[in-house]
Amino acid sequence: MKTLQVKLKDHSYPIYIGNGLLSRSELIQPFINSKQVMIVTNETVAPLYLQTLRNTVAAAGVEDSNNKFLVLPDGEQYKNIDVLNRVFDELLKFNFGRQSVLIALGGGVVGDLTGFAAACYQRGIDFIQVPTTLLAQVDSSVGGKTGVNHALGKNMIGAFHQPVAVISDTDTLNTLEDRQLIAGSAEVIKYGLINDKDFYVWLEGNIEKVMSLDKAAMVYVIEQSCLNKANVVQRDEKENNIRAILNLGHTFGHAIETITGYTQWLHGEGVAVGMLMAAEMSRKLGWFAASDVERVKKLLQKAKLPITISNAISSEKIVEVMGVDKKVQDNKIRLVLLKSIGSATITSDFDLKLLYETIEAFQE
Amino acid sequence: MKTLQVKLKDHSYPIYIGNGLLSRSELIQPFINSKQVMIVTNETVAPLYLQTLRNTVAAAGVEDSNNKFLVLPDGEQYKNIDVLNRVFDELLKFNFGRQSVLIALGGGVVGDLTGFAAACYQRGIDFIQVPTTLLAQVDSSVGGKTGVNHALGKNMIGAFHQPVAVISDTDTLNTLEDRQLIAGSAEVIKYGLINDKDFYVWLEGNIEKVMSLDKAAMVYVIEQSCLNKANVVQRDEKENNIRAILNLGHTFGHAIETITGYTQWLHGEGVAVGMLMAAEMSRKLGWFAASDVERVKKLLQKAKLPITISNAISSEKIVEVMGVDKKVQDNKIRLVLLKSIGSATITSDFDLKLLYETIEAFQE
Repeated sequence: MKTLQVKLKDHSYPIYIGNGLLSRSELIQPFINSKQVMIVTNETVAPLYLQTLRNTVAAAGVEDSNNKFLVLPDGEQYKNIDVLNRVFDELLKFNFGRQSVLIALGGGVVGDLTGFAAACYQRGIDFIQVPTTLLAQVDSSVGGKTGVNHALGKNMIGAFHQPVAVISDTDTLNTLEDRQLIAGSAEVIKYGLINDKDFYVWLEGNIEKVMSLDKAAMVYVIEQSCLNKANVVQRDEKENNIRAILNLGHTFGHAIETITGYTQWLHGEGVAVGMLMAAEMSRKLGWFAASDVERVKKLLQKAKLPITISNAISSEKIVEVMGVDKKVQDNKIRLVLLKSIGSATITSDFDLKLLYETIEAFQE
Repeated sequence: MKTLQVKLKDHSYPIYIGNGLLSRSELIQPFINSKQVMIVTNETVAPLYLQTLRNTVAAAGVEDSNNKFLVLPDGEQYKNIDVLNRVFDELLKFNFGRQSVLIALGGGVVGDLTGFAAACYQRGIDFIQVPTTLLAQVDSSVGGKTGVNHALGKNMIGAFHQPVAVISDTDTLNTLEDRQLIAGSAEVIKYGLINDKDFYVWLEGNIEKVMSLDKAAMVYVIEQSCLNKANVVQRDEKENNIRAILNLGHTFGHAIETITGYTQWLHGEGVAVGMLMAAEMSRKLGWFAASDVERVKKLLQKAKLPITISNAISSEKIVEVMGVDKKVQDNKIRLVLLKSIGSATITSDFDLKLLYETIEAFQE
């Protein structure tokens, strides 16, 4: 097992990475000892891991009457205020107090929604992330961004609320659908692109190991991703400046997800094509080599990630939705672009025409 | 005009108290300069002060296209997630970004809900409190507690989110209904009871001046209340310990409000009878003199605040609802009780029988 520590000004918390961690009560015990605990999960994950985790919570000394759970429907379209309210209903039904703890067992949707419920319930209670998808293990479970979607924009309602611990059991990836695994690898590639050229080069040579769930490779990939993310988050927890580079590809990707109603595209898929759009836009601005755009395209293809969008998604609609994306400042669209592989930059200094041309180059 | 400064670890903000402040653009200008601004108010306050404040925002240099407003229905029963979502709808409709500012123009309901919207919108934007009721000016606008009610409990969903400024224009109290003014005075009396014997004695001699809106008395009362509140909040922003004394009477009061559906009792009215219950319970425990219970009762009566509840509100139901109140720790009801006039304490060390007897003594 690998242990990383995320060190923030007011909070510091461990990330545990390894196999068989779901059953290890000593990892979770310090955070739930004699408290009321509610595991929040979804209908896909529950049959696989809920009972194991409930047993672990019990083994950590939590009485049955304080060992509750809630199973939500599965899918990004359920990451909304109505489903959030169901968590509050359940917590209040069981008289959960300010000392209780939520455990998010699942992917990014469960983690974001449960974290936001923890942020708001009685103005803030503790929560633990137990991510079961690659995307959640390398990205969404770390850094404290929580929230839900609004019909007019993704993650528009939320809070910064750090977990008290992250427990990433790599065994849970064995039951992950291939499409989810592939989508998660987009965020892994992102860390290489924005911050870590060595890791990017390693991925170019080893992406097949990730796709085949090689044990050592998975621990390495999750560890490097979390290290890169923690490094950025520690410098700028509330995204006042540098943290925004973690959004490479996200402004494009969110727009695609929003327009298609959060049902057709997985988050990582949107991010993948968005990163390639950002690379191409950077090339058009003269910042990024054409050969490097090809390298990015090739790695995304190797990972079986999408590199085009349907022409039914108009560039006008994408730019319009990008306009309500959180990365907007003073009514100007700010984009994360690339200077080279391993180095990103944030800018709002570009011609809108270039943005349209970039998007249109990816329609087919 | 009086200016107080609330000094917190990460944020520090001014409270301006005086007459005619709604028109003074130089007070608000530093916080809204070249930003998108939305005033959130209610249907009672809007006809009285919305146009004045919009003019002030315009005079501070905000363009018409960035000077928006939203008028909500009036009443505690609208302080809920559905109405909160209307604020998000409106912000997204107008493409409000992370640099925008909300202004809460109204009483505690508008302030709490608008502050919570600011806490959650795009994971946190700035907001300014412009309280127009005595309760909001002396209590809810200061200290950063924001939130909405849930059908199963008051203020159960919320966040700590400090305003960037509080502007208390005492002229707005001239249009306040008597019942609202009286309700607000309960929180004023609270500060004397928990923390400030001199102020309590002053109130015993001068409560009529407050009821008749004597100008100098109002500024003094608001200033002393904010000083007392800021003093406590500065020591314990997130209510880990001492801040809980500000809840004197609130655990009882919230239960009464919740049981009666937030429509029959005003918040301050619930707090008033709750404070008298706390005083009586303190007496039963041998901590508080019977003569002091009488003093509290007399001052509440002078202020025309309620000192009894209907026997239709059963003590069993009150204790049950108190059980889901946020002041509960480890399944034990914690109460703020009194040691003397000017000194409060927090305890969960009492016989439940005493609690029932106390509540029943106030039923009629």
